[in-house]
Amino acid sequence: MTDYKKIFRESLEELKKDGNYRIFADLEKIAGNFPQALNYKDNSVSEVTVWCSNDYLGMSQNDIVIESMIEAVKKVGAGSGGTRNISGTNHYHVLLERELCYLHQKEAALLFNSGYLANQATLSTLGKKLPDCVFFSDEKNHASMIQGMRNSGAKKIIFDHNNINDLENKLKINKSKSKVIVFESVYSMDGNFSPIEEICDLAKKYNALTFLDEVHAVGIYGKRGAGVAEDRGVMERIDVIQGTLAKAFGVIGGYITGNRDLIDFIRSFASGFIFTTSLPPCIAAGAYSSIRHLKFSDKERKKMFFIVNKLKSFLKKNEIPFLDNGSHIVPVIIGDAKLCKKASNILLDNYKIYVQPINHPTVPKGTERLRITASPNHTERMVKDLANALKNVFLELKISKAA
Amino acid sequence: MTDYKKIFRESLEELKKDGNYRIFADLEKIAGNFPQALNYKDNSVSEVTVWCSNDYLGMSQNDIVIESMIEAVKKVGAGSGGTRNISGTNHYHVLLERELCYLHQKEAALLFNSGYLANQATLSTLGKKLPDCVFFSDEKNHASMIQGMRNSGAKKIIFDHNNINDLENKLKINKSKSKVIVFESVYSMDGNFSPIEEICDLAKKYNALTFLDEVHAVGIYGKRGAGVAEDRGVMERIDVIQGTLAKAFGVIGGYITGNRDLIDFIRSFASGFIFTTSLPPCIAAGAYSSIRHLKFSDKERKKMFFIVNKLKSFLKKNEIPFLDNGSHIVPVIIGDAKLCKKASNILLDNYKIYVQPINHPTVPKGTERLRITASPNHTERMVKDLANALKNVFLELKISKAA
Repeated sequence: MTDYKKIFRESLEELKKDGNYRIFADLEKIAGNFPQALNYKDNSVSEVTVWCSNDYLGMSQNDIVIESMIEAVKKVGAGSGGTRNISGTNHYHVLLERELCYLHQKEAALLFNSGYLANQATLSTLGKKLPDCVFFSDEKNHASMIQGMRNSGAKKIIFDHNNINDLENKLKINKSKSKVIVFESVYSMDGNFSPIEEICDLAKKYNALTFLDEVHAVGIYGKRGAGVAEDRGVMERIDVIQGTLAKAFGVIGGYITGNRDLIDFIRSFASGFIFTTSLPPCIAAGAYSSIRHLKFSDKERKKMFFIVNKLKSFLKKNEIPFLDNGSHIVPVIIGDAKLCKKASNILLDNYKIYVQPINHPTVPKGTERLRITASPNHTERMVKDLANALKNVFLELKISKAA
Repeated sequence: MTDYKKIFRESLEELKKDGNYRIFADLEKIAGNFPQALNYKDNSVSEVTVWCSNDYLGMSQNDIVIESMIEAVKKVGAGSGGTRNISGTNHYHVLLERELCYLHQKEAALLFNSGYLANQATLSTLGKKLPDCVFFSDEKNHASMIQGMRNSGAKKIIFDHNNINDLENKLKINKSKSKVIVFESVYSMDGNFSPIEEICDLAKKYNALTFLDEVHAVGIYGKRGAGVAEDRGVMERIDVIQGTLAKAFGVIGGYITGNRDLIDFIRSFASGFIFTTSLPPCIAAGAYSSIRHLKFSDKERKKMFFIVNKLKSFLKKNEIPFLDNGSHIVPVIIGDAKLCKKASNILLDNYKIYVQPINHPTVPKGTERLRITASPNHTERMVKDLANALKNVFLELKISKAA
C-alpha cells in the first residue's frame, strides 16, 4: 500500500541533501525606509538591508502609490467580489487597462492576477486555438511561459538563447500554419537583452506572431518606462507585449497588450482569465498611479542606474566576479548550491545583508548565484558595505574569484 | 499565408452569434453602501443593486478588514517585491498561513495568489510527482481543478456528480499506486453539497488522498466559518482542504492546508507557487482580519441566510423557478444563452438590478442561468424588488415557469 507521507518526506529529504531546500526569510519591510526590513528568525527580530528585491524602483514605497491604494480601499472596499465577467469588473480595472494601452501604444490590454498567469493563460490559449500552432521558444524563457506552451498541447521548438541564426533555421524548415515566437526582452537571471529587432524581422519574413515578455523591463527601460521595445522604437512590431505590475511598478498583477481582436480573443477563451476573481480595485488603483508616475518621472530610473553602476564598480574593485550584461541585474555566480546558501547565510547573520541564494530549478545546476538588485533607495554606503561583505565571504568560503 | 487577425475575428463572431460573447459590466462599488454600485455604461453612470457578487458576506466592505489593509499599506508599502523565496515573504504572509492552520486545524498552510492557482498548481504537482498517480474527479469540478489535473499529465477518471456508487466502482477496479479523489463541498453553479463523509470512507477503504475545494463554503459554513467539512466534523479526514480569500472572506488569494510534509512538498515543487510574486502584504493583512472576524462573529452568516431564505420564499410566491439545494446560492435557470442575456439586460436597464448571465463555458449549454447571490447587506425591500422584476421579465420574455 502506498505510503503517501513517506513519498512527500523522501522528496523533501532529497532536496535538503542537494542543498536545494528553500527556507523563506520572514521579512517586514519598513515603509519609508526601504531597502531596510525587519527579519524575523528563531523568535528574534533584526534589521537587515535587502539586496534581492524585484521592487526595482522602490515604487512599493512611493507615496503616490500608497495614497491611491488607501483612497481606493476607502472608496470601494477590499476585494472585487467576482470574476471580471461576474460583477468583478471595477472602474479601476477599466482605467488601468486603458492606461496600459497608452503605455504600450496598443489598441487593447488585459489584466491578469499575475505575470505568471498572463503568460500561462495567453500562451496556452494561443497554442490551443490557433490552427496547427507551433511555438518557437527561446531556451531561457521563464517557467510561466514554458507552462503555458506545454499546457496548450501545441508543438514547441526551442531555439538557442538569443540565437537569430538558429531561430531562422528552425522557422525556415517549418511548414505549420500558425507560428508564435516567444521570448523575453531582459532575461531575469543573467540580466541580458534579446535582439528584439532581428526577431521581429524574422517574424515578418516567416509570418509568425511575436510574444514578448517585458516583466523585468517595464518601468525601467524606455523614455516612458514601457520597456526595451519602447527604448528601441519597436513596440508596434510586437504582437503581444506581456508585462507585470509586481516588479518595477511595485504592486501586483500581470497583463498583455496588443491589437483589439487578439486581446478580445484571449479575454474570451483563456480559462486562467475567465475563472478567477479579479484583482482588488485598490491594487488596480495603485498600479495605475505607479505607471502614470513613471511615465513622466525619470528620477527613479536615473538614481537606480547610478547605484547599479556604483555597485558594479565596487564589485570590480573588490574582484568579485559578476555577469555584466549592461542591465540593472547583477548576478554574482557561485556555481554550487550549498556554497551559495552558505554565502547567503553568512551575509545575513554576520553582515545583516539579505541576498537570497538562487538555486535549481530557478537556474541550472552549477550556475547557482547571488542575484543582486539595486534600487534608488540604496545608498553608496550600502553599496560599499555589500562589496566589502562579499569580499570577506568569498575569502572565508574560498570561492574562486574567476567567474 | 495565415491571416491571424481573421482567425481571432471569426472566433469572436462565432461567440457573438451563439450569444456567448461576454460584455463586462463596468462597476464601482460604493463603500459602506454595498450592494449598491455605480454602473458605467455608454458614457453615463447609474446606481444599481448587485445580486451576483461572490462577496457573500459583504466582508469586502467590513471596517476591520479595510482598516487592517490601510494599516498594512502604511506600514510596509504596496507590493511584496518578490516571490515568496526571493525577498517576497512578509511577516503578514506568515501570520496568515498560521491563521489558516488554526482555521482548518491542520499542520500547515500555503498561500497562492488565487484559488485558481491553488487548485491548478497543487493538482498538477501531485499528478506529476506522485508515482503512478490517477485522479478520481467529480464531473462538475471547477475549471481550475480540471486544468491542474490535465497539466499534470496524470490519468483522470471522472465519476458521476456526487455519485458514491460510481466512485466506488471506479476505485475498486483501479490498480494504480497513487490515487487522489478530487471534489468540492459546495458546487458553485447549482449550489448543491457533496457527500463528504462517504467520500472520505471510500478514500480510506481504497487508500486514496482526498482533495476538497471549499471555495464557496469557507467563511459561510461551520461554527467558525471553516467550511462544510467543519460543519460535518470531518476536517481531519481530508488530506488537502483548498479555499479562497476572495469570496466570503472578501479580499483575494487562495490556499491549501494539510499535513506538514504534503504542504512542504507542494511549496517546494509547484511551479505556480515558486515562480510568481507573492500577494501584497496588505492583502494578507486584510484576509487575516477577515478570517479572525468570521471565526468569532456569526451575525454576517445569520443575516445572509435570513435574506437568502426571504429571497427563496419570494421567488416561490412569484412562481420563479430556481434550484433549491439548501445552500446560499440561488440559480434561476433560463436554459438559453440569448434569452438569459436578454433577461439580464432588461433587469439592468429597466430595474437597475445587476445579475450577470451565466453562459457556456461556465455552465453547460442549455442550462444558462441567472445565478443570484444574497448578502447580509441586501434588504427585504431589495428582495421584493428583485422578485417582482424577475416576474415581469419572465412574462415579458415568455420564459417558461417550470424549471
